[in-house]
Amino acid sequence: MNKLLIVGTVAFDAIETPFGKTDKILGGAGTFIGLSASHFNLQSAIVSVVGEDFPQEHIDLLKSRNIDVTGLEIVKGGKTFFWSGRYHNDMNSRDTLATELNVLADFNPVVPENFKNADVVMLGNLHPLVQTGVLNQMTVKPKLVVLDTMNFWMDCALPELLEVIKRVDVITINDEEARQLSGEYSLVKAAAKIHTMGPKYVVIKKGEHGALIFHNEHIFFAPALPLADVFDPTGAGDTFAGGFAGFITQQGDISFETMKTAIIQGSNLASFCVEKFGTERMVELTQSEVKNRLKQFKSLTQFEIELT
Amino acid sequence: MNKLLIVGTVAFDAIETPFGKTDKILGGAGTFIGLSASHFNLQSAIVSVVGEDFPQEHIDLLKSRNIDVTGLEIVKGGKTFFWSGRYHNDMNSRDTLATELNVLADFNPVVPENFKNADVVMLGNLHPLVQTGVLNQMTVKPKLVVLDTMNFWMDCALPELLEVIKRVDVITINDEEARQLSGEYSLVKAAAKIHTMGPKYVVIKKGEHGALIFHNEHIFFAPALPLADVFDPTGAGDTFAGGFAGFITQQGDISFETMKTAIIQGSNLASFCVEKFGTERMVELTQSEVKNRLKQFKSLTQFEIELT
Repeated sequence: MNKLLIVGTVAFDAIETPFGKTDKILGGAGTFIGLSASHFNLQSAIVSVVGEDFPQEHIDLLKSRNIDVTGLEIVKGGKTFFWSGRYHNDMNSRDTLATELNVLADFNPVVPENFKNADVVMLGNLHPLVQTGVLNQMTVKPKLVVLDTMNFWMDCALPELLEVIKRVDVITINDEEARQLSGEYSLVKAAAKIHTMGPKYVVIKKGEHGALIFHNEHIFFAPALPLADVFDPTGAGDTFAGGFAGFITQQGDISFETMKTAIIQGSNLASFCVEKFGTERMVELTQSEVKNRLKQFKSLTQFEIELT
Repeated sequence: MNKLLIVGTVAFDAIETPFGKTDKILGGAGTFIGLSASHFNLQSAIVSVVGEDFPQEHIDLLKSRNIDVTGLEIVKGGKTFFWSGRYHNDMNSRDTLATELNVLADFNPVVPENFKNADVVMLGNLHPLVQTGVLNQMTVKPKLVVLDTMNFWMDCALPELLEVIKRVDVITINDEEARQLSGEYSLVKAAAKIHTMGPKYVVIKKGEHGALIFHNEHIFFAPALPLADVFDPTGAGDTFAGGFAGFITQQGDISFETMKTAIIQGSNLASFCVEKFGTERMVELTQSEVKNRLKQFKSLTQFEIELT
């Protein structure tokens, strides 16, 4: 089995949407990526940090998904990273109500010995220096390095971000972030510019409008599944990235054809994530549900056209 | 050859975009629909009205595309409908600078005798009573009636709009209009509600984010082709509708499979429309360009996935 190394937050979220409100629940990019990637046939490990307040049951959940947690540091007396946000009625925009870095402030990632040769590295959204720190510990060059980031790091740590971007094969960002990073409004032009920064593959996430992958002149598009209800978008982007990286790890192949299927797989998994609060839907998700919805993706997009 | 009857404005537009500005140029929903549909093998006619100020060369252009203009009334001493708008930097929103109804104010559509048995009727965006007036003149029930409309009529003539919507098979509107018409934010729920108003097929246009067609529990999605430059979005929705209705007319078949291909054809033609001001790109567009871009649509969306 191929190995996937994941770095990303393991955290508490408190979420308000028009449908309700949660107390502190399990969240974090690393958590969503890990749960999503666990739907594929692979070995995975999470590199992250939590405080002593982090319940054992959450760690057990990750372990039950065959996620190696050797690299999940538990800081004695420390408090786990906490994020709180409120979504607006359209579910496309949100206000951050609280961000408490806590143990994340001094996080030094340590890659487990037997994942230093991981086939695929998924650098979840975190400080670019943490992402770099993980890359520096790899003893064998990974087949593929995928990086997710956000506008916050473009605002606060752009030089460090550009350094790590140079070293990755795939970047996944949303449309606004692609525009900010490139200074180009057109996503085609934005992707072309981001190519020149390093990544050979640029994945642009458009939320309910789907996702695009650019590889030089090649473009592929995966729609988001139209849903009657979007309950909570938290973690959808990470779930997408986890499905993308997980599928590629399983296949052990980094052709563009594999990447196409990978963004369909990522979109498919993300479509479940938004159906309940936090990780709730991902935790209960079955393989047959995943497969059935992939069929919906096919019928949503596949057509016959004669081109003589 | 099957017959397509088009009703829609034939007009003057003056457009400002971040890329430039035009004087009064040829525009109007009927014009864009007609030019787009002319890429298929069919007989078409436009029912519309212009003033004496409308240049013969524009009428000759329509004729050169084998569009029957018997139903294009020329009002002596009248002035042609004029719209002027300015697009914002993102090209997704615009301000209307002027709307001069002129001859459109008293328009009584007259369907040419040999199109009263048209196979497909495309009711372009116009006052719902004009759309109804066209339907009432059909002597043979059309295989398919497609209606395009906009928020303006929902605000000003909702009862009349709901009456004509009852009588059509397909409605094409944009996402915001679908939300306004249905009172539902989710497009899945919006489409379900609009089904109950009459149309068996609901096409929701999302501009640069593509288009969806809903038919009961079936959904199909056509992306918009990602473009490096969008020069002028004017007429893209009408070009889409014209491609959709034109392809269905050519095929003479109203299965959901045909509709799928039809929204791909519509999206494909619309992707050209936005590349130049007004009708400019549509006028010079060749069949081989159309075909080549259809190939791009295929590679943009078609994937292989094993589902055992």
